[in-house]
Order: sequence, then structure tokens, then C-alpha cells
Amino acid sequence: MLYCIGLGLSDEKDITVKGLEVVRRAEKVYLESYTSILIVAKEKLEEFYQRPVIIADRELVESDSDTILQGAISTDIAFLVVGDPFGATTHLDLLLRAKELNIPVKTIHNASIMNAIGACGLQLYNFGQTVSMVFFTDTWTPSSFYDKIKENVGCGLHTLILLDIKVKEQTEENLIKGRRIYEPPRYMTVAQCATQMLAVEENRGEDVYNKNSLAIGIARLGSDDQAFAVGTLEQLTCWDMGSPLHSLVLVGRKIHDMEIDFIKDFAIDKTQFDFHFAQNP
Amino acid sequence: MLYCIGLGLSDEKDITVKGLEVVRRAEKVYLESYTSILIVAKEKLEEFYQRPVIIADRELVESDSDTILQGAISTDIAFLVVGDPFGATTHLDLLLRAKELNIPVKTIHNASIMNAIGACGLQLYNFGQTVSMVFFTDTWTPSSFYDKIKENVGCGLHTLILLDIKVKEQTEENLIKGRRIYEPPRYMTVAQCATQMLAVEENRGEDVYNKNSLAIGIARLGSDDQAFAVGTLEQLTCWDMGSPLHSLVLVGRKIHDMEIDFIKDFAIDKTQFDFHFAQNP
Repeated sequence: MLYCIGLGLSDEKDITVKGLEVVRRAEKVYLESYTSILIVAKEKLEEFYQRPVIIADRELVESDSDTILQGAISTDIAFLVVGDPFGATTHLDLLLRAKELNIPVKTIHNASIMNAIGACGLQLYNFGQTVSMVFFTDTWTPSSFYDKIKENVGCGLHTLILLDIKVKEQTEENLIKGRRIYEPPRYMTVAQCATQMLAVEENRGEDVYNKNSLAIGIARLGSDDQAFAVGTLEQLTCWDMGSPLHSLVLVGRKIHDMEIDFIKDFAIDKTQFDFHFAQNP
Repeated sequence: MLYCIGLGLSDEKDITVKGLEVVRRAEKVYLESYTSILIVAKEKLEEFYQRPVIIADRELVESDSDTILQGAISTDIAFLVVGDPFGATTHLDLLLRAKELNIPVKTIHNASIMNAIGACGLQLYNFGQTVSMVFFTDTWTPSSFYDKIKENVGCGLHTLILLDIKVKEQTEENLIKGRRIYEPPRYMTVAQCATQMLAVEENRGEDVYNKNSLAIGIARLGSDDQAFAVGTLEQLTCWDMGSPLHSLVLVGRKIHDMEIDFIKDFAIDKTQFDFHFAQNP
């Protein structure tokens, strides 16, 4: 049996009791390590689980998934995923492959940013589709996120924006020369996201949002030092939210009074916050 | 400290290790019992937690929340919520009240239908806003859900529809006479939801969906006997998904090939399923 087990958002104790029981008796324990990160080190997990943990990078999961799956034919294999196992497309791929091989799969769910984002005070019902923001380069500034936000804004809904992480990145030179030398990991910040958003609005000019649009910066959601910062996109372009992971919510027009009450506590500038809602009742 | 602790979707072992540690040492343990249900009985929770559990019904949480909150001034109180604590508006209300009283609050997240729905094989990124379906009566057939689905359909997105549950319901007579006599709990089925959806489409006639629209019935998500049934709305009107809780997803136009591959396994009629996608490529 292949067990896909969500680890939740923050540390080793966010696993469910059910998940922990499987980890402790599984033949092998893999940790998916490239679509998200836990705040704790692998060693801390191993100590708590009392089990060795095998890091499963993109290469192993996408190109060599049969190595993981073969073991699940006759024994129990635990495949650990930060957040919930259904957070990333990659895992769907692994599950489809398991189906092809007739390997039974069981999922043990957990919190992910997709539902825990409610902690910012906005209601999950009032969110439209979730979008992703990648690191722009000189030659690559994809703006498909802009079209999706436009749809959400058109319906007055909030948008959760998930921010890029780069793990095991290679320089072009190292990639061409086949050298397995990797750059240090990079995690997009709220400030970088807000900056890229405004650059795309400047370029596309469809007035989907602007520098005065209200947004929420979120950092380390679910951990003891999680942080929220409510401000305009312009304010967030220079707001330091500290260490990763970050995400951002663009607040929708149809925000409820109760949501306003709740997020006000996180306002970077409470006077400006009140002014915003006096201007946009 | 008030700890809001998500219990996850199914049974007593879906609580996180962190959540269980708090429950075992908290002064009092409340279980919110009217916005959702666990599949296990209260006694089973108490046995596993090794703690008495106080059922918190709507009355206690909405009208008498200070009873819960007062205890949290000087001791640790655990407030347990099925799924994730931020799943229902009611809990936001409790948290706002805690803020007013300067009571520190900590949330321990868990899976909820809002993210675990990914288990049906559709990507969370491709969902629009979530809607709720209430039990219609002879005189009350609200169709605000229809307008929201219309927005999602306009964007080609999937819609998750959460189905009504009625717990501690009183007949009009008992309510008027002030008699605390409650009707047996009722949980909306996938078939009831599909029927109500088609009735509203018939009435509104805006061609948001029709009897041939593809949908997924979901039952007991996250439990060992969870079930998925993919079919047209018409097929689902007479499809028995077994015991509660149920929910329904209306499939969006922009479905990806990988999603089609995944949900095909759950098709009520595989030939018709293939025909559907041959007609709607």
C-alpha cells in the first residue's frame, strides 16, 4: 500500500495521529521536498518519527517514480507531503502511475495553505481560483496569473496567490555542462510578489488592480510566529515579512463587514485602512 | 489561551499530534457540533483523548460564547472543530469576541473539505468559489448558489457545493411553544442536491448547467469508505451514495486531461463518460 500522508504546515507535530502510526510502521518513508518546505529540518522529523526519511526530489518523483511504487506492491510505503497530498499536480501524476500498476493507495489528509488561509480572517467561501506567481527573469514574465485574477476581481472575490520556491536550481552553465551543482534555495517574498504584480498591471493596463488595492501578506502560516500584514500593494512592495514561506491575498470587492473587522488588526497603517473602506464602502 | 483545534475529516485519529497534546492538558474540551459531524461518536473521542468532551451546540457558541471564553483567560481551553477551525463563519465570530476580551487564541489547523476535495482528482487551482446548498422547503428555495455557480461556469471553473445539515432542528410548533424537542438530524444527499440544482435551472433558465452536465458526488471524504461517483446531474439525482456526509462538485469546462484520466475511474457509466468528452472536447 502507498500511503500519501500530509504533514500540515509547520513542524513535526503537525502530522495526524493516524499519519504518524503509518510512518512508524512503514517499510520506507519518503519526503517530497520540492513543491513546499517544512520549517523543521529532516533530522528533527527523523528523531520524532523514529524512522529514517528519504528525501524525494523532483527527479526521483517525476522520472523515477517506479522506484517508490515498486516497494508499495508488497509492503507499506509512506510518501510524505508538506501540507495536503493533493496540493500539487505532481502527486496526482504519482497516483495515476500507481493506478496503472494496480497499487492500492490511501491518502491521509492534512491542512494546507488552501484551507488554512482562512486564518487571515477572510472567509474561504469568498475566494475565487488560486493562482501561482513565479520568479520573473529578464526574458520570462508570464502573466497568466493576471487573467485569472481579473476573473476573480470581476466577481468581487479574494485571490490567494502562492509564491514560487526554487529548490535544487542549476545555473544555465551547470545545466548545459551536466554538473550537479545547485544554487541556494530561493523563496519569493510578499514584497517581490507585490512588485511583480504592479509591473504586470503597468504593462497590461487593464486596471485589474492598482497600487492602492488592498492585499494581505502572509508569512509562515500555521507556525508559532506566523505573520499577517494588511496594506496596499504599494505598501507591501517594501514590507519585510521575515523568513519564508510567504503568500499573498488580493482582497476582493465583496468583502464582508466581519472580515473587515478581523483583518483590521493586521493593518500596517490603521488610519489608511479605515480611509480605504471610507473611500470604497 | 483558547486553542481552536481542527479534527480533520473522519475519526478520532485524524487530530494532529500537536492538537492531541493540547486536548490532553486543557482545562476544558469543547466540541463544536452543529456545522459538521465526525463519523465517530463523542464517547470514542473521549476514550481516545482520555478527557471528557463538552458538546457545544449553536446556542452555546452563538449566544453564550463568553462561558467558553471566560475559562480561557487563566487556563487553556480546547475548542474542537470538525475539519479546520476556519471552515465556518461562526468560529470567526467566536475569535472576534476573544479579541475583544483580549484572550489569546491559537489555531491548530487540519484538513477540511475545502482542501481534501482534491482527492476526487480535480486540481484545487481549477475551483472557483465554494457554494452552499440548503434544504428547500415549500416556501423557501433560495437560488443565490445559482448566481455563484454561474460566475464559476463563466470562467470554466469547477464548483464545490457543500450540502446542508440540520442538527437540533425544531418543528415550527415546538419552536413557538418553546418546547426543546428536536427532530432527528438530517444530512442532504448528493441526489437531493442534484435534484434541487436542476429544479433551479428549470426555474431560472439561464443555461448555467443542465441535466447532462458532468458532476462528482462525494461521500464520507477522508474516511476508509469514502466514495466518488462521476456522472451527469441527471444520473446523480437517483444515485445512492450511502451514509453522510455528502458533497458535490460541478465539473468546469476547463478540465485538464490529467483530471479526466483521474476521475474516469469513478464514472457511473464509463461509455457515457467517454461520450461526454467526445462531445465536449
